[in-house]
Amino acid sequence: MAMVCLSDFEAYAKKYLPKIAWDYFAAGADDCTTRDENILAYKRIRFRPHMLRDVSVMDIRTKILGSEISFPVGIAPTGFHQLAWPDGEKSTARAARAMNTCYITSTYSTCTLEEISTAAPGGLRWFQLYIHRNRAASQQLVQRAEALGFQGLVLTADLPYTGKRRDDVRNGFCLPPHMKVKNLEQAFEVCKMSLLDPSVTWNDIYWLRSLTRLPIIIKGILTREDAELAVRHGVQGIIVSNHGGRQLDEGPATIDALFEVVEAVRGRVEVYVDGGIRKGSDVLKALALGARCVFIGRPALWGLAYKGEEGLQDVLRILQDEFRLSMALAGCASVSEIGLHLVQFSKL
Amino acid sequence: MAMVCLSDFEAYAKKYLPKIAWDYFAAGADDCTTRDENILAYKRIRFRPHMLRDVSVMDIRTKILGSEISFPVGIAPTGFHQLAWPDGEKSTARAARAMNTCYITSTYSTCTLEEISTAAPGGLRWFQLYIHRNRAASQQLVQRAEALGFQGLVLTADLPYTGKRRDDVRNGFCLPPHMKVKNLEQAFEVCKMSLLDPSVTWNDIYWLRSLTRLPIIIKGILTREDAELAVRHGVQGIIVSNHGGRQLDEGPATIDALFEVVEAVRGRVEVYVDGGIRKGSDVLKALALGARCVFIGRPALWGLAYKGEEGLQDVLRILQDEFRLSMALAGCASVSEIGLHLVQFSKL
Amino acid sequence: MAMVCLSDFEAYAKKYLPKIAWDYFAAGADDCTTRDENILAYKRIRFRPHMLRDVSVMDIRTKILGSEISFPVGIAPTGFHQLAWPDGEKSTARAARAMNTCYITSTYSTCTLEEISTAAPGGLRWFQLYIHRNRAASQQLVQRAEALGFQGLVLTADLPYTGKRRDDVRNGFCLPPHMKVKNLEQAFEVCKMSLLDPSVTWNDIYWLRSLTRLPIIIKGILTREDAELAVRHGVQGIIVSNHGGRQLDEGPATIDALFEVVEAVRGRVEVYVDGGIRKGSDVLKALALGARCVFIGRPALWGLAYKGEEGLQDVLRILQDEFRLSMALAGCASVSEIGLHLVQFSKL
Amino acid sequence: MAMVCLSDFEAYAKKYLPKIAWDYFAAGADDCTTRDENILAYKRIRFRPHMLRDVSVMDIRTKILGSEISFPVGIAPTGFHQLAWPDGEKSTARAARAMNTCYITSTYSTCTLEEISTAAPGGLRWFQLYIHRNRAASQQLVQRAEALGFQGLVLTADLPYTGKRRDDVRNGFCLPPHMKVKNLEQAFEVCKMSLLDPSVTWNDIYWLRSLTRLPIIIKGILTREDAELAVRHGVQGIIVSNHGGRQLDEGPATIDALFEVVEAVRGRVEVYVDGGIRKGSDVLKALALGARCVFIGRPALWGLAYKGEEGLQDVLRILQDEFRLSMALAGCASVSEIGLHLVQFSKL
Repeated sequence: MAMVCLSDFEAYAKKYLPKIAWDYFAAGADDCTTRDENILAYKRIRFRPHMLRDVSVMDIRTKILGSEISFPVGIAPTGFHQLAWPDGEKSTARAARAMNTCYITSTYSTCTLEEISTAAPGGLRWFQLYIHRNRAASQQLVQRAEALGFQGLVLTADLPYTGKRRDDVRNGFCLPPHMKVKNLEQAFEVCKMSLLDPSVTWNDIYWLRSLTRLPIIIKGILTREDAELAVRHGVQGIIVSNHGGRQLDEGPATIDALFEVVEAVRGRVEVYVDGGIRKGSDVLKALALGARCVFIGRPALWGLAYKGEEGLQDVLRILQDEFRLSMALAGCASVSEIGLHLVQFSKL
Repeated sequence: MAMVCLSDFEAYAKKYLPKIAWDYFAAGADDCTTRDENILAYKRIRFRPHMLRDVSVMDIRTKILGSEISFPVGIAPTGFHQLAWPDGEKSTARAARAMNTCYITSTYSTCTLEEISTAAPGGLRWFQLYIHRNRAASQQLVQRAEALGFQGLVLTADLPYTGKRRDDVRNGFCLPPHMKVKNLEQAFEVCKMSLLDPSVTWNDIYWLRSLTRLPIIIKGILTREDAELAVRHGVQGIIVSNHGGRQLDEGPATIDALFEVVEAVRGRVEVYVDGGIRKGSDVLKALALGARCVFIGRPALWGLAYKGEEGLQDVLRILQDEFRLSMALAGCASVSEIGLHLVQFSKL
Repeated sequence: MAMVCLSDFEAYAKKYLPKIAWDYFAAGADDCTTRDENILAYKRIRFRPHMLRDVSVMDIRTKILGSEISFPVGIAPTGFHQLAWPDGEKSTARAARAMNTCYITSTYSTCTLEEISTAAPGGLRWFQLYIHRNRAASQQLVQRAEALGFQGLVLTADLPYTGKRRDDVRNGFCLPPHMKVKNLEQAFEVCKMSLLDPSVTWNDIYWLRSLTRLPIIIKGILTREDAELAVRHGVQGIIVSNHGGRQLDEGPATIDALFEVVEAVRGRVEVYVDGGIRKGSDVLKALALGARCVFIGRPALWGLAYKGEEGLQDVLRILQDEFRLSMALAGCASVSEIGLHLVQFSKL
Repeated sequence: MAMVCLSDFEAYAKKYLPKIAWDYFAAGADDCTTRDENILAYKRIRFRPHMLRDVSVMDIRTKILGSEISFPVGIAPTGFHQLAWPDGEKSTARAARAMNTCYITSTYSTCTLEEISTAAPGGLRWFQLYIHRNRAASQQLVQRAEALGFQGLVLTADLPYTGKRRDDVRNGFCLPPHMKVKNLEQAFEVCKMSLLDPSVTWNDIYWLRSLTRLPIIIKGILTREDAELAVRHGVQGIIVSNHGGRQLDEGPATIDALFEVVEAVRGRVEVYVDGGIRKGSDVLKALALGARCVFIGRPALWGLAYKGEEGLQDVLRILQDEFRLSMALAGCASVSEIGLHLVQFSKL
């Protein structure tokens, strides 16, 4: 079977992953409306392509928080990569480094931050954090990540409690006994995520700020109101995200929320987006609407499930080729030429 | 089979209820457009969730007409509960009391008001009334209900004649011989509902008012014009309802009509809504649009069909958990924080 | 099988009619978009029902061009009723008279106007006319109809040429040899409809006017421009029609065009509508949007196919009952209370 | 099987062409959204037909760049006609001449321009050009075409690189060994289209202008900005096209882009459109929105696949008959009567 586009990897993963793992990765909250809307919303955005631009030399590189990446697609934080591939996050880190892009490593990794750093030294990585009831544990994690050379701290804001993912409830989802959430001091049972602190507020950004010199990126913002609060509380970046539709069902699709957030932010911090990216042209749309870069979640897991590090590189390479081609066909030779003039909302 | 969400109960009821009973409960008028729109219309409303609010302590209680209920979901009036479970409305009353919420008891109960009261003494109950051609019979019912401690009188306004429910016509729907509409003096054949008085007008509210000191809630209002009339005629509450889509097909979905009614009422009386509630987040949407509380019809019957009192409690508990979770994920720690800012209408 | 609603008759006709006859009656032009839109467009109109009106005494009678009919549904002109039932238009005429409504008799009848008149003397009938190249033949038809007591002349304006109905082309549709278009002097082969005159213009209304004292109703108007022309040329009525979607595909649904025509006409002549009526509530919507009366085409043929005169009466009686019920549920006790306030266009 | 409408030819071609050829002709880029939207967008445009116009004498001729054609439908440039029929472009040229319309011959023909000219001398033909990295080769082609009597030069602007057509990638699409792209000096392998020059800009129009006295038509314009540029750079015509949805997926449907381009051009040059034409009424819509003429791509290939020259004539004749009929049913007797008043956008 030729792997031509990302849905080929999805089909592969669905076929070969254990059902409980596939269900966990695929899960959306409640009716999965938002999970599916993340994809459908891209379809409602249409290009206004321009012709006869010189696109013989294409430059698809960009910078996020000052670091250059080979193209504006990074790896979103997702947990439990060993469910997809034995080497887990070590493979992810190697693939991201090989493709010269950013990998946001989840707190809920099945490899330790140290293992990940050792596997792919020098790779651009940000560390994703949930704030735990045990603040000392969170503090320690942040400081470990900083010491290991992670270059950004991503605070996930949309999970005071875990969303209701029906299939996980039906499956009684738990990590298999030989996998652990190794980053946390006492390896815990993931089924009971009550370690997370639902009392976190905007003021905790200041607390995080006091712990680290890393730039803080907040993930999970969907409205202009929260975007304004994020800027005021001094974050360096915002990831427009609905957690892949796994938290509150029937909120906005991320690409719909992106424009509102970009407008509110007015360039004061960088804005990124995740959720629903399935083609290179989706990346182009996100950038046209003001994203600095996008992050992929499930497609990265499908790549891992296919062939580990190599499979994830395949996924990234396909996105890269598709992104470059769609830029050229829309009449842009470099990322700096991408703008709002490239898109319109469909009548559909 | 794990009962994870309300559609699990629906599937169970469809599988195990006698076809004639399932069809009767499921029936909508004509093409069932409004019945189905009640659900679809919720999908077109999208949340605007807010992050990093302290949601560690959740308060989901509310008050309706001064009575506290454990969360803003009550039981809508539906007839013939013995079709779903042998104990019929006695089970319903016990479940509602156990969950500390309000049960609107239908005139068309298969248990008497006295049996229901005895089954669950002290429970918060309202009595639903159709006005019969024999006004004395209606008067007697109202006064019996008041004497038995019912705390509200719900006048159904949308059934001068019974809607055309095709499956009921095909099935020749009738109560089985061992069930009776026990509240009415002469137990009558339900197939011939011509006992109802189609000449009822707004002035009959004054007549009802003269019979009882109970608050009067009018059920079946769908427009601002009628909402204004209801307020002027002195009702204490309005239930925005289209009778589960069983009366006039192709009227508005109730959640669409709710906002219009709330605007017209301007806080002068409490407004509730029924129809199409299938998830806790639907409750949150209804409250965001101004409902004080919602009422569930068919889902309560599915719960009864599953395990009687216990099954209905399961249904209520699932809604309660889902409502609490969606509130938290939207950034609200108490019902008083829910407002219009939480929602927007989808582009779809 | 119980015949509960009009689609039951449709299913019967589809099952029992010869395929070539079913296909002919069912046919729409090209992709059948307009044929289907005629039905779908009704779905996009939603009621705003009003409660607690005295609907104990219902009056559903109306008058068209001064003649009272039992309810505002007549029989649209369709050809070749013997394809549906051996007695053909004689049965149609009897059923219409029995139900006290108007039957617009087609030029393309398989019974003569004389046979039809004899079958149901005293019934309210209008005569539908195509203008033929042979004007004398048309003149003779008009004068025969007037002499036989037909009370209106319906000029079909939308068939300068026959629309492209793919199934008829595939089937090589022709009347079976034992049926004839008996009204025309030389019974002709229907396959070649080139007898019709495509040079007819508005001025030919004056010519018709000169032939008869009957009121002239023009059928096939879909725009305000043409409605204005019709009024100026002195017609007494307009039937908003797209020929059941059999002529120009992808024009407006008739219920969508109705409002535009009604607005243009400003009460100067009566406006009717056909196409897509499948339920009593569709009739209510059409009247709310300004139609004086509706006409049914295919449903009448299904009724004939079911049981001839009796089957058509069944169809009319179902529509009558449904219309009366939907009026009552919307809060109207008589046709004069129906108005624009009863409807709104759906967000869908 | 009767060939009644264009989809009959499509079904035939899908059934009888080799899969690799069918897939190549049918291919759209990425998710094929734009390919399918080209068709769906026509459905959203509705006619406003006018009645009782004299349509007894129909004149469907038009002129493009001064040349009369029998009706406003030409043959769009598509490659590799031998994949559909052994005689390839020679058959296409004969059919176009027989039907007295314009055939835009593709650079990527499997017959030489000389063979095509000889096959149908005197036919109206334009030559479609891609600009190659080897400019001398392009220049030679242009001059050969001019010398052979081609009457227009169509520059395709939307293919700096080939779009990603997944099925072609999966099939490893290549021309079979016995077919060649004969127009190019060194017959090359089509799989590697890197001969095309992605550095082409608007200034290259001036270069083309310097090579030939033929009118230059630019193909692939989708926005008002590019339409303005095209006019300013001196082209004589614009073909609104998205390359049949084979280049940038999720750009506008061509019929949606047409109106924007027509408005921008304000009559300064002729505007044509291709993509999604499947019925004669689509042609009428395109003309109503301002196109001078439309061009068909895939339907021409289906006609070839059916019966070569004769099959393509069948396709053109069906379109011609349907176009004439829809004009008459809309109330237009000649092309000059077609205008914006004939259409509106659907509520759907």
